[in-house]
Amino acid sequence: MLIDIQFLPSPPHSYLFSDRVVVVIDILRATSTMVQAMSQGALEIIPVATVEEAFQMAKVFPRGSIILGGERESKRIQGFDLGNSPKEYVAEKVKGKKLILTTTNGTKAFHFVSSGKDILVGSFFNIGAIAKRCIELDRDLFIFPSGDEGNFSLEDTVCGGMLIELITKKGKKPIALTDASQCAQILYQRLGANIIEAFRLSHHGKELINRGFEEDLAYCARIDITDIVPEFKDGVIRIH
Amino acid sequence: MLIDIQFLPSPPHSYLFSDRVVVVIDILRATSTMVQAMSQGALEIIPVATVEEAFQMAKVFPRGSIILGGERESKRIQGFDLGNSPKEYVAEKVKGKKLILTTTNGTKAFHFVSSGKDILVGSFFNIGAIAKRCIELDRDLFIFPSGDEGNFSLEDTVCGGMLIELITKKGKKPIALTDASQCAQILYQRLGANIIEAFRLSHHGKELINRGFEEDLAYCARIDITDIVPEFKDGVIRIH
Repeated sequence: MLIDIQFLPSPPHSYLFSDRVVVVIDILRATSTMVQAMSQGALEIIPVATVEEAFQMAKVFPRGSIILGGERESKRIQGFDLGNSPKEYVAEKVKGKKLILTTTNGTKAFHFVSSGKDILVGSFFNIGAIAKRCIELDRDLFIFPSGDEGNFSLEDTVCGGMLIELITKKGKKPIALTDASQCAQILYQRLGANIIEAFRLSHHGKELINRGFEEDLAYCARIDITDIVPEFKDGVIRIH
Repeated sequence: MLIDIQFLPSPPHSYLFSDRVVVVIDILRATSTMVQAMSQGALEIIPVATVEEAFQMAKVFPRGSIILGGERESKRIQGFDLGNSPKEYVAEKVKGKKLILTTTNGTKAFHFVSSGKDILVGSFFNIGAIAKRCIELDRDLFIFPSGDEGNFSLEDTVCGGMLIELITKKGKKPIALTDASQCAQILYQRLGANIIEAFRLSHHGKELINRGFEEDLAYCARIDITDIVPEFKDGVIRIH
């Protein structure tokens, strides 16, 4: 198995992922929110790029069957039911509902890799389950951190590095790493013992603190609280 | 001073470097070769993107005043005087000459950032001098690793991380680091004690070994063997 990770969230060449398992990571906070929502019983998630699309999409489904969630500049969007703090996504709000979600970085990332075959939703919440699923699928792996407004994201890469570390240690077959995946693994080995501290070093983590979302940092740093593996297929995220 | 580093060798947005000091790094081997050639008395270096351009450019200057150097697939180009092993660039061959150089990654990188104001040529050979110059210039810094055929390059990033480490430790003013520059610094702190080993972990290092250039790895890992600071301006590299 070859494991690669792309450090800048630009559209990757399709040859990099069309035959590979893709794991999309946006720890602060889109993929954390997605995993949380599905673990609390959301039926499916439709990630959309714009606020406009979210409202359009909402009209397609019966009232009461959907939840509108997401953020711009970290904050809940006017007219939306929920923001982008994973802790808002509790069973009493999301169980049995479709979630239409739009965020600054994470939802775009799914569209960049949408032609891939197996696209998994990764976060610290389900990192062990994601590693297990990647080992089962036993194909080359392409990790896609969603980045921070087009830039390299420290926290997403630490999570990608943890996935590499887990697969390298648990997998029974030889693993080949690219220069980038070696770098991500080293970053995890250095910062993984204190993930909240890694968040505090990151640009996006600092921004969330400044905007009043410091609690989300501790919330998103929790490891292996669920074993669900959400998959993105045909525009929709469902549990595998 | 803000220090940023771009991990993928795509053309950066001009706002990232137009007012900043730019340091281009292609350790294996273009910028190592450039620094070596200038330290051995080459008058100037003209980096060109294609072999064709190199031959065209050679016609412009009197015979005997120029040297054609470079590689494709790591090897010397037919009709060229020298390849891309820095150790070929000794005084008896290059002193008083103009060097026209074309390589796979490094020469392209200069053209990506050519509209920048101060563009410095960095390598382990002159890393201390580069750090000193960056501290003197006292402006924001944009480090541009040339990458490995469009991909993230471990060895260039280790060198970029060393530059960040030196400036952070020697500079007297507060330094701000982006997520990417923090990552590069961590990579250097982990791999910098044995640079040849870092080369051996890298894709490009392995490729050079396979192609018979293993000696270049030890050669390019030598730190602070010169204090020259070549600068790229108006298409030409000269010593500051």
